Amino acid sequence: MTTAKAHANIALIKYWGKKDESLFLPFTSSLSLTLDPLYTITTVSKDSTLTKDLFVLNGVTQNSQETEKISKFVDYFRKNNQFVRIESSNSFATAAGLASSASGYAALSKALNQEFEWRYTDLELSRITRKGSGSATRSLFGGFAVWQTGDDESSFGYSLPTQMDIVMVIAVVDDQKKSHSSRSMMKRTVQESAYFEAWVQQSERDFSDMLIAVTERDLRRIGLIAERNAMMMHATLLANQTPFFYLQPKSLEIIQLVQQLREQGIVAYYTMDAGPNVKIITNSTDQAKVIEQLSEILNQDNIIIAKPGPGASIL
Amino acid sequence: MTTAKAHANIALIKYWGKKDESLFLPFTSSLSLTLDPLYTITTVSKDSTLTKDLFVLNGVTQNSQETEKISKFVDYFRKNNQFVRIESSNSFATAAGLASSASGYAALSKALNQEFEWRYTDLELSRITRKGSGSATRSLFGGFAVWQTGDDESSFGYSLPTQMDIVMVIAVVDDQKKSHSSRSMMKRTVQESAYFEAWVQQSERDFSDMLIAVTERDLRRIGLIAERNAMMMHATLLANQTPFFYLQPKSLEIIQLVQQLREQGIVAYYTMDAGPNVKIITNSTDQAKVIEQLSEILNQDNIIIAKPGPGASIL
Repeated sequence: MTTAKAHANIALIKYWGKKDESLFLPFTSSLSLTLDPLYTITTVSKDSTLTKDLFVLNGVTQNSQETEKISKFVDYFRKNNQFVRIESSNSFATAAGLASSASGYAALSKALNQEFEWRYTDLELSRITRKGSGSATRSLFGGFAVWQTGDDESSFGYSLPTQMDIVMVIAVVDDQKKSHSSRSMMKRTVQESAYFEAWVQQSERDFSDMLIAVTERDLRRIGLIAERNAMMMHATLLANQTPFFYLQPKSLEIIQLVQQLREQGIVAYYTMDAGPNVKIITNSTDQAKVIEQLSEILNQDNIIIAKPGPGASIL
Repeated sequence: MTTAKAHANIALIKYWGKKDESLFLPFTSSLSLTLDPLYTITTVSKDSTLTKDLFVLNGVTQNSQETEKISKFVDYFRKNNQFVRIESSNSFATAAGLASSASGYAALSKALNQEFEWRYTDLELSRITRKGSGSATRSLFGGFAVWQTGDDESSFGYSLPTQMDIVMVIAVVDDQKKSHSSRSMMKRTVQESAYFEAWVQQSERDFSDMLIAVTERDLRRIGLIAERNAMMMHATLLANQTPFFYLQPKSLEIIQLVQQLREQGIVAYYTMDAGPNVKIITNSTDQAKVIEQLSEILNQDNIIIAKPGPGASIL
């Protein structure tokens, strides 16, 4: 029996689009910050009495469709047709744009690696983790993490050595399960968005710029590049056959607040993923000012303060 | 003394970006619907006692900066250094994304053409009108109107012969003067948006598709193409150095309403210009149903029902 813990991450340069669906290769490299308060704890136990895998998420036994997805991933690690019992729980709402699949697959990978005695390094493990969930590739690593594009061999994750004062204030606009999964919207966007090619080109430039900004610990540049890169991702969806918004009216209110905060000289930038929640990038000095004004439009329960978190580990 | 009247128009395929700032040539052809209830009435009178032009808008004498802009345009028509008095009034709020510059410059052109006895045809006149305001090129014409891209000679407006049952329900989210003029945002977007080139390419395809849809009087296709084309225009702004939204939270609420209306089988599509107002495309059968549900989120005073209007005329 092995228990592992992995943290969610929020991308500063987004992963948006696969160039190879079967090998799970992204069009572009992405870069994220792993976050301390959002994590998944997963226990994997080999059980010879089982006739198929068993998957329990947040105390609820999952149906065969959900379990089969997980079983396919377990197959990358499985030895001797051994079935496993998987018990997983999140410290936060599932599939609401808070990167639950990232921490989920990272924790599962880490646990399976140990339970089946593979002894893969994190870098080796990230190549397999990629096939469960792209963003999980980064959740194996702490702090600033990269998932680079490439081929089956060279598309892996690694962490950047930069440590700095950065805080993400997560504004939870809606913690319900998403009606459009990021996986399906992403696929549709690759196929039909008139802006997808331009997205790939600009995102590659943004990635290089972000690497420099992170290395130089330049929070202002990190924020500006992250903001534009996120909105460019959302803009690809507006160029689909039918325009699609992940933004809710409340998300836009929070974006407007961030713009006002910045006009007041407060460090605040925003990023958004495939959901309505807004993540505000700030530092420990200005964090209180951000939360004070955010509290005027959002319930305190819907505000999460997140500092950089560690990489996945065996408990 | 000459008085002319011209109607505003709402583009179904947007004009967004000049390829030549000095000749006022657009990157792409645009296509619009001229609207009956939104119009400008302008009276031009030669006055030999004047030492410069005088411009009165909605009863208010305009400052020298506003007047000089107009004077430059009068120069295209002026004979013998004759100065003019211009009195103009709109049936609606100015510069709030309701195309006041389109009806304004179209009415002014029409009046100046007569007052200085040029006898230009509307097509000839549209080449000059273009230099006042691009979208005004289309407001010289009634119903469905085109402003085609080209060179100084071939970039003019004309009207399409299609007549059909189409209604625009205008949801006025904000009738305050815009903080970012469409002219300056457009210029910035041409210079810095990572999506501008892709916008030009797709918009050209949308224009051809829209021409066919209008010719076939296919309201569903007109609506779908208009919706996507508008959101693609707004999406170019998200790929600027600093992402920019013309959308307000309320605009997004109305967009979500339109999506719901369509799920209920009601004819409803949306378009937006360089401002927060949302224009809902429907027909006379479903107009009442659209207004009924729109009234739940917007004051009745902020809803304008617009049917196709005529071209500019001398009163």
